[in-house]
Amino acid sequence: MEHPNQPAAKPPYYLEDLQVGQRFISGTHQLDAEQVKAFAKQYDPQPFHLDPEAAKGTLFQGLVASGWHTAAISMRLLLDTGLTIAGGMIGAGAEISWPRPTPPDSLLHVECEIMDLRTSRSRPDRGIVTIRSETRDQLGEILQVLVAKLIVPRRII
Amino acid sequence: MEHPNQPAAKPPYYLEDLQVGQRFISGTHQLDAEQVKAFAKQYDPQPFHLDPEAAKGTLFQGLVASGWHTAAISMRLLLDTGLTIAGGMIGAGAEISWPRPTPPDSLLHVECEIMDLRTSRSRPDRGIVTIRSETRDQLGEILQVLVAKLIVPRRII
Repeated sequence: MEHPNQPAAKPPYYLEDLQVGQRFISGTHQLDAEQVKAFAKQYDPQPFHLDPEAAKGTLFQGLVASGWHTAAISMRLLLDTGLTIAGGMIGAGAEISWPRPTPPDSLLHVECEIMDLRTSRSRPDRGIVTIRSETRDQLGEILQVLVAKLIVPRRII
Repeated sequence: MEHPNQPAAKPPYYLEDLQVGQRFISGTHQLDAEQVKAFAKQYDPQPFHLDPEAAKGTLFQGLVASGWHTAAISMRLLLDTGLTIAGGMIGAGAEISWPRPTPPDSLLHVECEIMDLRTSRSRPDRGIVTIRSETRDQLGEILQVLVAKLIVPRRII
């Protein structure tokens, strides 16, 4: 969903088409225990991501998704927000935090806002767009906050 | 590989067992195009992660792994460094950057160093350990830098 006061150009977006404060909201992804365990088996094989029984004796007191699984699903959802960048969504780096663990029955969506826009000094054909992307569950609880720097081409150079 | 001058306690490690400057190095992971495409199909379906031909016309000029794929593999490698934390490796948040893209033929490993240790003010039974984890390829090039805050229990409370 874009900011109602700032109807933007038709995607894909170039740097000039974007404005601070624009917001984009994704569809949903229904997580389940099988997905949590499958990701963990491959990338983060720890008891609290693999086995509901073993997870009871851990800090999380039950099965939770790997933070990197939440991050990967959030990337998929971010591509689905309508923030379609010319040349693709390419990140240079990010800060990521997980204020709460992601339970296996979470219905996830992403809400994303443009925080900053600047032209690259060294590469005038592109800019850096800083976005804040919140991954929320069905109750609106924030499970992940990602502040990412995206490389976005300029339309006019 | 631990720092030769600081032989640490036998893992799993509690906060008291760790010291700033300790280093840990993982085994390797051989990436390939099939893994790159499989991850991308599920989590980051963009042309430069899915299709070597389509990727030629993009910023990357060829197939590269999703940054989140590099992050997920790095988590697996990090668990393999010998930095085995009591209660598991649990991150509260991190800064992540990808100085170079990850080509599909990369042989990856992780080098990790302890940067900071502190006891939690609000929870005296645990501390926060800051690690810097570099994901490198077979030439030693750094493909990902992760500075992560881990929640580590204290042995003595």
